[in-house]
Amino acid sequence: MAGKFEITSEIASFGGKILKLTHESAVLRCKMAVNLYLPPNQGKVPVLFYLSGLTCTGDNCLEKGFLQAHASKLGIAIVYPDTSPRGLGIPGEDESWDFGTGAGFYIDALKEPFKGSYNMYSYINDELQQQLFSEFDQLDSSRISLSGHSMGGHGALTIFLKNPGKYKSVSAFAPISNPINCPWGQKAFAGYLGDDQQEWAKHDATELMKKYSGPKPAILIDVGTGDNFYKQKQLLPEHLEDAAKSVGWDVQVRYQPNYDHSYFFVSTFGADHIAHAAKFLGTNSTL
Amino acid sequence: MAGKFEITSEIASFGGKILKLTHESAVLRCKMAVNLYLPPNQGKVPVLFYLSGLTCTGDNCLEKGFLQAHASKLGIAIVYPDTSPRGLGIPGEDESWDFGTGAGFYIDALKEPFKGSYNMYSYINDELQQQLFSEFDQLDSSRISLSGHSMGGHGALTIFLKNPGKYKSVSAFAPISNPINCPWGQKAFAGYLGDDQQEWAKHDATELMKKYSGPKPAILIDVGTGDNFYKQKQLLPEHLEDAAKSVGWDVQVRYQPNYDHSYFFVSTFGADHIAHAAKFLGTNSTL
Repeated sequence: MAGKFEITSEIASFGGKILKLTHESAVLRCKMAVNLYLPPNQGKVPVLFYLSGLTCTGDNCLEKGFLQAHASKLGIAIVYPDTSPRGLGIPGEDESWDFGTGAGFYIDALKEPFKGSYNMYSYINDELQQQLFSEFDQLDSSRISLSGHSMGGHGALTIFLKNPGKYKSVSAFAPISNPINCPWGQKAFAGYLGDDQQEWAKHDATELMKKYSGPKPAILIDVGTGDNFYKQKQLLPEHLEDAAKSVGWDVQVRYQPNYDHSYFFVSTFGADHIAHAAKFLGTNSTL
Repeated sequence: MAGKFEITSEIASFGGKILKLTHESAVLRCKMAVNLYLPPNQGKVPVLFYLSGLTCTGDNCLEKGFLQAHASKLGIAIVYPDTSPRGLGIPGEDESWDFGTGAGFYIDALKEPFKGSYNMYSYINDELQQQLFSEFDQLDSSRISLSGHSMGGHGALTIFLKNPGKYKSVSAFAPISNPINCPWGQKAFAGYLGDDQQEWAKHDATELMKKYSGPKPAILIDVGTGDNFYKQKQLLPEHLEDAAKSVGWDVQVRYQPNYDHSYFFVSTFGADHIAHAAKFLGTNSTL
């Protein structure tokens, strides 16, 4: 297959296959790795983009989330992108675990030295999709959904809300739901966007939801009550619930007793999230 | 709970919980870590010991094997032990990845300097079980099965074959099936047992099967045809199949097209192995 992606390995999984890919990203100005799960189905399949959390790459959920088991049954492809550009050598990008490398926050940076390369929003929403859909005919570009975990839950929700009608559905595991009001979000938005807090609000799921107009498919969110980041008020799903109520959107936040922030939590509820996506993407199979 | 185990963390998973434990092992002369998955069921539950492969700890399959999903539904506890003693400081134990640390081979060493501490057979078959059953009342010591991957498949098969009637069933993922005839096994047995090849045969699944007398529950084995270690003749499942035929034992070796040796392989077929164990352990649930 001639194209922009190099397939570095192909791994059988649940009757389908995992393609470990690398490609050159213009918007991120570096080489990126991305994992693609193709279910065993023939013909076009819908696509779920799963966005990962702080410090993760596209490998963590691929190895520990077990989403392929359900995607195989329901005939859905899954894309697992990385969480930031890699190896750019920008001063400060490797100084902390919650900013810079592994912490791109799915926004396009406005502030130097990150402006011009920390463009994870454009990468996920545009470039990566264009390259994937032009190279892998099996992927149905008219049926895309989003999900994600923690910072990736923020990414999934905000990318959905910024593009009314583009994505069929969204769900999230323990998402950062109101970043302008939590330490992780404030640090990241100050670093990538600068001090103008009106700019921050454009990338905050709770704020975006209040102003959104477009199709409103039900949203599924799981949060563990034993999640230390939830307890530390980094996630603030209640704020998103309040915003949803105020605009009449069916956003179901399930507080799962004792579950933590790990992939043991994600894998436990993965079947529900894949089934949620399938409901809106349309598939011919059932879990 | 007063007892020999320290619970270092408790993690919710598929309605049950993972206990990460440490305890002092007398037969291994060191502190060991072990993971225990308890399903949500009330009352006594049967127990599956899952033995891991070279270089692994009890964490790999816990995180990547997804066995808890199925064990939760069928009401089976899973024990994930480590693969060798740790940190003994024995000369040579850290020189290679396939011998010494992470490579205990589930036998009791006869040769110095490993004699007296590399006793993974006695640890798994006796000491660990005694400690677990005396401390966790929920575990039913009369219903135990074995499974394992690669070196752990060798461990599961040989421990089953050395103890007729003790274990209800055994299954394996890509097991080292005839170690006396493969490089991994020859290196390990020479290092732990010495040069007497009659001694080696006592720890070889294929040889043990030929001489076994006792209950013969069906055995399930999966091997990927894309597994490089299978191709390199480290696993030799055909030899075990031949031995099974010669003694009339129902040993089903499924050659899974394209699957490799990784946890993507183990997780894909995990449901079948848990269901296999459940058939012999007796449970009230179905997958």
